[in-house]
Amino acid sequence: MRYELYYWPTIQGRGEYVRLALEDAGADYVDVARRGGVSRMMKMMDAEKGTPPFAPPFLKAGKLVIGQTANILLYLGPRHGLAPKAEAQRLWVHQLQLTIADFVVEIHDTHHPLGPTLYYEDQRPAAKARTSEFLGERVPKFLGYFERLIHASGGPYLNGRRVCYADLSLFQIVEGLRYSFPNNMKRLERKVPRLINLHDKVAMRPNIKAYLSSDRRIPFNEDGIFRRYPALDR
Amino acid sequence: MRYELYYWPTIQGRGEYVRLALEDAGADYVDVARRGGVSRMMKMMDAEKGTPPFAPPFLKAGKLVIGQTANILLYLGPRHGLAPKAEAQRLWVHQLQLTIADFVVEIHDTHHPLGPTLYYEDQRPAAKARTSEFLGERVPKFLGYFERLIHASGGPYLNGRRVCYADLSLFQIVEGLRYSFPNNMKRLERKVPRLINLHDKVAMRPNIKAYLSSDRRIPFNEDGIFRRYPALDR
Repeated sequence: MRYELYYWPTIQGRGEYVRLALEDAGADYVDVARRGGVSRMMKMMDAEKGTPPFAPPFLKAGKLVIGQTANILLYLGPRHGLAPKAEAQRLWVHQLQLTIADFVVEIHDTHHPLGPTLYYEDQRPAAKARTSEFLGERVPKFLGYFERLIHASGGPYLNGRRVCYADLSLFQIVEGLRYSFPNNMKRLERKVPRLINLHDKVAMRPNIKAYLSSDRRIPFNEDGIFRRYPALDR
Repeated sequence: MRYELYYWPTIQGRGEYVRLALEDAGADYVDVARRGGVSRMMKMMDAEKGTPPFAPPFLKAGKLVIGQTANILLYLGPRHGLAPKAEAQRLWVHQLQLTIADFVVEIHDTHHPLGPTLYYEDQRPAAKARTSEFLGERVPKFLGYFERLIHASGGPYLNGRRVCYADLSLFQIVEGLRYSFPNNMKRLERKVPRLINLHDKVAMRPNIKAYLSSDRRIPFNEDGIFRRYPALDR
């Protein structure tokens, strides 16, 4: 079965967490909107029947249409060796992914504190205030949590020696924070060596390595979740 | 088995979505922190082993410790008749809950646009700007999405005649928005009659009705997610 991934074609965004899982798994998939399928994507969201998603990303898997990033990974994980099959462990990996999702919202809010429908340029002072709180309080708290889990499991991954989709997402978090806040990350990274090691391990996985150097990986840019605004990286 | 729910004892917050499910199901549970167990809750979050949650709420179910509101409901749903057992439908109900969770973040951001560790009093102008965008753009979009789903299913609930945990959460959303924005909701409610009908149906469910009139239901207040700040309800 060939999966169909539906997500905005010019950004990594939330779709990237799904792309990384599909790529690491070597799954057969098509990134529909990147092949001219944006209008098809919009049409599926407007569907009267079935399970129309509120927003991209969503995945078509046979007859299923699955929305919400973490929900897609919940579905893909045990099918592709990226999550255990036992319920207790599946719930745990999903819990980690949902915590990452909470973090992603806060990352997005750094440049959009006054709401998603306004431009960054219209909310610069608020963005500066929010980012300061984010870098000072929230990043250490979130990254420190994951560092502690890797320490407890023995590493190199969140749950020890077996990778799961939440590890792939953490790789993306580190990549993105380095892109957005290069100055601050130099300092922040020193406190989370195990997380940085996890990032490096994921980057060296053969399918991920091939993906990152392919044109399927969209470069970071200032339309996505991770944006480089030097004024915010004081 | 008696469930143990761990959540802040003085607010509805995110714990309320779990409380509503446990109450509707007539499940045997104890709200630990409300029985003097706050330090026990903090200790479980600091655990070196097992599955320490990043934040409350979390549920202890036998040996399992499950964090993240939507994840707890994913676990409880099929066990208590609040979600179908078949995978496709379970994923759909979970997708709806995750969309509600996204909405809850935006609701919280109305009074905390500059970040969760600052006080509302220190971010009033930003809160006003964010709330204006929220009421004008986001509330109609989210409520309209759920209205459309109820219409498509035939109602009265999201998936037709059988209630699911996401319906209970939508009840809470309407209750909370009415508490926070009574003036605006008068106007906004007119466009979503099916959602209001769903809210009324949930309120009349015997176990929910008994819960709402009990002292187990914590009143809304200005420490939770839904806060009544008249300056924001223009």
